[in-house]
Amino acid sequence: MLYQKENPHGGDIYTQPVRLDFSANVNPFGTAPAVRAAVERSLSDLFRYPDPYCRELRRTAADFNNVAEEWLLFGCGAAELIFSWALALKPRTALLLAPTFSEYRSALESVGCTVREHLLREENDFALTESILERLREERPDVLVLCNPNNPSGKTAERGLLERICRCCAELNIRMLVDECFLDLTDRGEELTLKDMLGEWKHILLLRAFTKSYGMAGLRLGYCLCADAALLQSMSETVQPWNISVPAQYAGVAALGEREFLQRTNELIRAQRGYLYGELTRMGLRVIPSETNFLLFHSDRELKTPLQEKGILIRSCANYSGLGEGWYRIAVKLPEENRELIATMEEILRG
Amino acid sequence: MLYQKENPHGGDIYTQPVRLDFSANVNPFGTAPAVRAAVERSLSDLFRYPDPYCRELRRTAADFNNVAEEWLLFGCGAAELIFSWALALKPRTALLLAPTFSEYRSALESVGCTVREHLLREENDFALTESILERLREERPDVLVLCNPNNPSGKTAERGLLERICRCCAELNIRMLVDECFLDLTDRGEELTLKDMLGEWKHILLLRAFTKSYGMAGLRLGYCLCADAALLQSMSETVQPWNISVPAQYAGVAALGEREFLQRTNELIRAQRGYLYGELTRMGLRVIPSETNFLLFHSDRELKTPLQEKGILIRSCANYSGLGEGWYRIAVKLPEENRELIATMEEILRG
Repeated sequence: MLYQKENPHGGDIYTQPVRLDFSANVNPFGTAPAVRAAVERSLSDLFRYPDPYCRELRRTAADFNNVAEEWLLFGCGAAELIFSWALALKPRTALLLAPTFSEYRSALESVGCTVREHLLREENDFALTESILERLREERPDVLVLCNPNNPSGKTAERGLLERICRCCAELNIRMLVDECFLDLTDRGEELTLKDMLGEWKHILLLRAFTKSYGMAGLRLGYCLCADAALLQSMSETVQPWNISVPAQYAGVAALGEREFLQRTNELIRAQRGYLYGELTRMGLRVIPSETNFLLFHSDRELKTPLQEKGILIRSCANYSGLGEGWYRIAVKLPEENRELIATMEEILRG
Repeated sequence: MLYQKENPHGGDIYTQPVRLDFSANVNPFGTAPAVRAAVERSLSDLFRYPDPYCRELRRTAADFNNVAEEWLLFGCGAAELIFSWALALKPRTALLLAPTFSEYRSALESVGCTVREHLLREENDFALTESILERLREERPDVLVLCNPNNPSGKTAERGLLERICRCCAELNIRMLVDECFLDLTDRGEELTLKDMLGEWKHILLLRAFTKSYGMAGLRLGYCLCADAALLQSMSETVQPWNISVPAQYAGVAALGEREFLQRTNELIRAQRGYLYGELTRMGLRVIPSETNFLLFHSDRELKTPLQEKGILIRSCANYSGLGEGWYRIAVKLPEENRELIATMEEILRG
């Protein structure tokens, strides 16, 4: 848990009255029904220590992903695995994207790693481009972290470019963490995932979450996929044996059966992302085209405080390296919620 | 989670049919009713990210323990805090008791610490004695870990001796972790806890769990008490911000209101520990007098496998440093469960 520092993330519904939280990017439908039912079933087993090997969950997730059971390691949320990865590798130097999710830096700096950033340019809509290849050849960092789709832009990296980056890293002996936690909430999850390359490329660790897709951020469950057994072994030695709770293990097994729920979610997100993109653009705001369940945009007018006064929370991205004042991220939520956000924003921008 | 290594702990009910689990030391009554109710209430909030500051839980636990909120840090089980403590301090040398809980060593070795052991002697019933003071003065380790009552012996350390050890460590600049996770399940919790000394002695970190007392091992929640704000800050930086799940935070708040449940638990444990001690002794086994909800004993005859064949799981302590073949640990459970264990053991020992 955070101790005394300021919360650098969204989702802070605990210090203020929030009616609509657009700052955390979870499934607009909330928790998948099978997940709720699984947690209810777990009530009679709360007194037991959880299975330290997550056997049933491991079998289910291996099946679901069509990979060997030995390629899986679970974490108390994907966030824990970022820390275990950093701890197990103790890299001296790392290259991160900017802007991107801030926990990569926190985890790497906690093991004394020197972090450098590859600036994604606004004129490219913050897309990852070929220029990263030169940067890798010049700097030869110990590790590279990619996030696909990237947070907070929602931009995906193209498959061809991803493969060139992976090859380049393999040649230069650079370990990669590729965070695919939001990939299931895009329309190109199967095309863009690097799952099928893991057998060939042992230097890649893929991060996957249950949090967003199945609306279970509060349960803490994520996993990684990697063909380097020695790395997973080292990662597992950096944490306690019982890090995955009983409710989370039950919920994870149930979640992976919720394919129809995920499909409905993606249909909703596609339509509502289009709606939000159109409306924000119509209001004259600069919006970055996203492929997932959140949108990054720029507004010259301060929006966070006036929205908060109306009980609506959005994520200011001013503290993202590579962004700055005026950038905001919103989650794609239910139609009526999105309409209310737009109506309220319009009022503020007009006023 | 553990990856491929063999599970060194009790509670392995996941690979074998177990009717009665005496290998994990949780509350014989199971989960406290208020804890179950709290987890049920949390179902509607599973989609939310947990509060990274555990604000409500922190207020409740500070009140309960009569300490400042700033002295508390929560973990995904007390086990996580052992790892954060080791990571934050990165000690070069450590002194541990033997036998004791094995996660101290795992955590310390994961940060490259050299671990030495202070052997507790069977002729003293594995009690901590004055001799540890000499050992500390001779070796001057960076850190010392005590466990009170100790696991697997159930022996407590006397208050006077504890205070001398604390003073000695303060003088020699040795950091201490004192694991009091089972102290609430003894009759001398208030007398033996070092809570009241924390303000004076900033080098001490006390570990407390919810796991055992309130039957919620599966939920993962523990905390530590320490007056060294800089240490808690460093510890918090070694983990992700959302390590305490929503159900665990709800459950923790509810658990601390269950004073009557804890009192009934302690009455049961006292009576049933007496029963088990008497019966094991009557059968000619060497039993270590315990003050908490588990008992360590020695049997020349192998017991684990024959009991397992009857669906009863006990903890072989052969892998504890400082013990060896023939040592077993059993939890104190409900009267009918304890009677069944004794009857089955008698059959085996007679047969």
